[in-house]
Amino acid sequence: MPDGARSLLRTLADCGVTVCFSNPGTSEMHFVAALESEPRMRAVLTLFEGVASGAADGWARMRGSPAATLLHLGCGLGNALANLHNARKGGVPLLNIVGDHASWHAGYDTPLQSDIETVARNVSSWVRRGRDTASLGRDAAEAVAAAMGPPGQVATLILPADVSWGDGGVAHAPLPPEPPALPDARSLDDIAEALRGPRRSALLLGGRALCEPALGCAARIAARTGARLLAEVFPTRLQRGAGTPVVERIAYLAELARVQLADIEELVLVDARLPVSFFGYPGQASELLAPSCRVRTLAAPTQDLHGALQSLSERVDARDASPLLQPTSRPPLPRGRLSAEKVCKAVGALLPDDAIVVDEAQTSGLMLPFYTAGAPRHDLLCLTGGAIGQGLPLALGAAIACPQRPVIALVGDGAALYTLQALWSMARERTHVVAVVFNNRAYSILNLELQRVGARQAGAAARAQLRLDDPEIDFVQLAAGLGVPARRATTAEAFNDALRHALDTPGPHLIDAVVPAAVRGLKLRLMPHLLGSLGRMPPGLAQALRRKIAP
Amino acid sequence: MPDGARSLLRTLADCGVTVCFSNPGTSEMHFVAALESEPRMRAVLTLFEGVASGAADGWARMRGSPAATLLHLGCGLGNALANLHNARKGGVPLLNIVGDHASWHAGYDTPLQSDIETVARNVSSWVRRGRDTASLGRDAAEAVAAAMGPPGQVATLILPADVSWGDGGVAHAPLPPEPPALPDARSLDDIAEALRGPRRSALLLGGRALCEPALGCAARIAARTGARLLAEVFPTRLQRGAGTPVVERIAYLAELARVQLADIEELVLVDARLPVSFFGYPGQASELLAPSCRVRTLAAPTQDLHGALQSLSERVDARDASPLLQPTSRPPLPRGRLSAEKVCKAVGALLPDDAIVVDEAQTSGLMLPFYTAGAPRHDLLCLTGGAIGQGLPLALGAAIACPQRPVIALVGDGAALYTLQALWSMARERTHVVAVVFNNRAYSILNLELQRVGARQAGAAARAQLRLDDPEIDFVQLAAGLGVPARRATTAEAFNDALRHALDTPGPHLIDAVVPAAVRGLKLRLMPHLLGSLGRMPPGLAQALRRKIAP
Repeated sequence: MPDGARSLLRTLADCGVTVCFSNPGTSEMHFVAALESEPRMRAVLTLFEGVASGAADGWARMRGSPAATLLHLGCGLGNALANLHNARKGGVPLLNIVGDHASWHAGYDTPLQSDIETVARNVSSWVRRGRDTASLGRDAAEAVAAAMGPPGQVATLILPADVSWGDGGVAHAPLPPEPPALPDARSLDDIAEALRGPRRSALLLGGRALCEPALGCAARIAARTGARLLAEVFPTRLQRGAGTPVVERIAYLAELARVQLADIEELVLVDARLPVSFFGYPGQASELLAPSCRVRTLAAPTQDLHGALQSLSERVDARDASPLLQPTSRPPLPRGRLSAEKVCKAVGALLPDDAIVVDEAQTSGLMLPFYTAGAPRHDLLCLTGGAIGQGLPLALGAAIACPQRPVIALVGDGAALYTLQALWSMARERTHVVAVVFNNRAYSILNLELQRVGARQAGAAARAQLRLDDPEIDFVQLAAGLGVPARRATTAEAFNDALRHALDTPGPHLIDAVVPAAVRGLKLRLMPHLLGSLGRMPPGLAQALRRKIAP
Repeated sequence: MPDGARSLLRTLADCGVTVCFSNPGTSEMHFVAALESEPRMRAVLTLFEGVASGAADGWARMRGSPAATLLHLGCGLGNALANLHNARKGGVPLLNIVGDHASWHAGYDTPLQSDIETVARNVSSWVRRGRDTASLGRDAAEAVAAAMGPPGQVATLILPADVSWGDGGVAHAPLPPEPPALPDARSLDDIAEALRGPRRSALLLGGRALCEPALGCAARIAARTGARLLAEVFPTRLQRGAGTPVVERIAYLAELARVQLADIEELVLVDARLPVSFFGYPGQASELLAPSCRVRTLAAPTQDLHGALQSLSERVDARDASPLLQPTSRPPLPRGRLSAEKVCKAVGALLPDDAIVVDEAQTSGLMLPFYTAGAPRHDLLCLTGGAIGQGLPLALGAAIACPQRPVIALVGDGAALYTLQALWSMARERTHVVAVVFNNRAYSILNLELQRVGARQAGAAARAQLRLDDPEIDFVQLAAGLGVPARRATTAEAFNDALRHALDTPGPHLIDAVVPAAVRGLKLRLMPHLLGSLGRMPPGLAQALRRKIAP
């Protein structure tokens, strides 16, 4: 009979969990020793647990099934927490294996003893502590099933060291997935009627609805009924680019989103949450929809999304509808002094086929959706939970999930510095990731937020809290220190060259894109200008803003 | 009337909390804006929350009163968690200010919404959510009082954005400290009798007992009664060096500690926990003491330590006793190829007066206590909770607490990579910190632990999880990228030069000390050899080992 760790690894591999992003300590040493016994399991070492959790998230977004993390006690789980939060908010399946002290040792209040469960519950819908070696295989199979959902969720299996090293482990077969429920026929009828009716309607897509086949089905329904096709602000995974359905993302800034959504009278949620402001602001409501808007749910995250879309499609006779597809178009290569907008333009100009784009660029990425809309088909992965430090780990995981696809990670300097250790694992695993850091030497988004919360008399002490320019941060040296070749670009020409080189040369690369802070001292009324001319905006937003600005 | 944030800042400053290690986001913008109104508060920006919490810990260890952190919602608190755990285990006072969404916004399940309380409870003895602006000052005063203890502890004040920006804040005066209870006279009599009796006795000092005046008082009691003077494995703060009382630290490895403690018949805990094994191992008990050993508590962490020591001192007539003091002695400067031992030797040879030494060197620091024992007086700060990534942040905080004192941080490469962002804040704040990274390209301690847990058949897959050599990590470039000048040393001569230069030149420095992994493939029976010849060991351990090895 194998030991617990071997039965656990075998069960995981049988259940399709074949990658483990690890940062082990003493209590995980038997799991580590057992890796030899399960060649289907790839262990990817990370230097920090937040890299492990973000990478597991990225892997699962691309594969649709969970990867594992291997974490050291409560503190390791704590370090992983922010990116587990992002995974949770994105409905991403993920399995944490958290090693713990041997059962009999836990009562001694030793230095590393802590209440792992409280931390686990913050992010996990499913938490279990392994009780004995014999049932560990079953625990693991249940954990994977829980992670798979629907909806996808974070499951945490706490693994006491003695349960891991004990003899008598029994691998367990995968458990059948929970069949998701179909929305009832009456509700489907109501939605079909609302969409066919005279009121202005929109489908708001989130979660799994932004990938094929759901996306195409939703687009045909929209085409047939005249409904607008909207996407959540920060999609977990959005398939886009030339030839894909045109979907309009809701703006991050509540001021813009409110304009964008103002004339919707019937909103249908498709695996999406009600649109609300990201933060609350003095004197502003959190809701974004007009009070007269009626909201209906086609498919909740727990429900059968594809079945619901199919049924609705039949009801509105959309099977043969021709959805609005994004035409092919690329911006010209930018020239002159580099700016955040020019970086986005260059990405649009040079994006290779079938790329994976990770967007954690905050303010610097405002123009990214516009410039890449007509570029070759790609997947876009966003910051689902708002906890920065996700971009580089997500790119690592996506690259390991899809080794044939190029990955471009666009990250703000502030965000990159949370989990920069991901670069080392990218080099270790020979992944083809191009990390572009927008080095604007500021927490730019906070300069904007400082105004938005109404804190207007910001003095020098406050402004100093938002600056990253003393000392200046050199990402070329940081990347080189972690084994990743890097270049700095201060002109668009240099950036174009660096991006071409990075895309053409296997292995990870970093580009330190030195750009001015886009929103330093920005006034809110200038936002439409910042977003580009109205002609370059998503059609719904442009139309709405045009009405508002020039009534 | 000031807004909530201003009343909060004023209360904190009135209560002596004059440093805030920050990593703010949108929900903290009013706190940031209010910094201008309270010039007594120094806000130290960090690039990652784990740096903020570790620095607040370091500050408080040197000042004896809490610093604040400023963290962004549950995810920011999550990132801070590992070092808050270390502070908690060390009994260090610390106050977290965790911004949250505006109260009315919390119900919308927005991306950054999470259950902050569950995470806070994992590390905080005191947690409160600010309910209204008017009572925020009182909340803050209570939080500071709670953090002060005794024992020192982590207090977390959750600050909804609207409570912060609301009008009607009222600063609150500091609350009087809780008077700690004295142990009862009977118990003191018993301890005095035990120490005067024939059984072999020891005082085990922890927490506040390892600094003056407690340390000297305990040392006089030991001198008068013949008790051994022991210290916890990882002291929060230990005053040591030439002219200070000789204290023998308990060994990290349970195998050694058990030998060290074997003949103790009466153990008196002085603000210390019962000594137990750091981890549990197959077939080994967690307890380290002989079964016949009687354990008594002179002062629990909640009790009046100084009063208890004074009372005991009177009972055993120790006031005029002459404690064993460490004679002045320095090792010669090392020569030849660099090793971890030679780094420790150079530190002992060159340690300046009144330094603060942070030890997170793991296996590489084994010889540090020996080589620095007779060096000039210094404070030693250790990894109290076992969660690595503490060393560099702790050094940052200690340097800000004591700007006139040099700080030397000795950190393993694995540990340094958790919170390397601390270097940037060291540069920003012009601190005089010398960071020495033991670059042995491995999680060396895990090579040892892999054997200790009994996982003997470790294959290539397992060993790969413990190696940091592919790619190699260049700490000189990493430091330079964060604005800290650095040198690499592969010989003892180069290291000596680099250390001298760093100590003589204001501002932060890093030395990338390239050393062989000390315990790669190490057999446990070689440990005494690794620790140096028996003559170089703490007297109690050497004596015990001598008996065991050559009976």
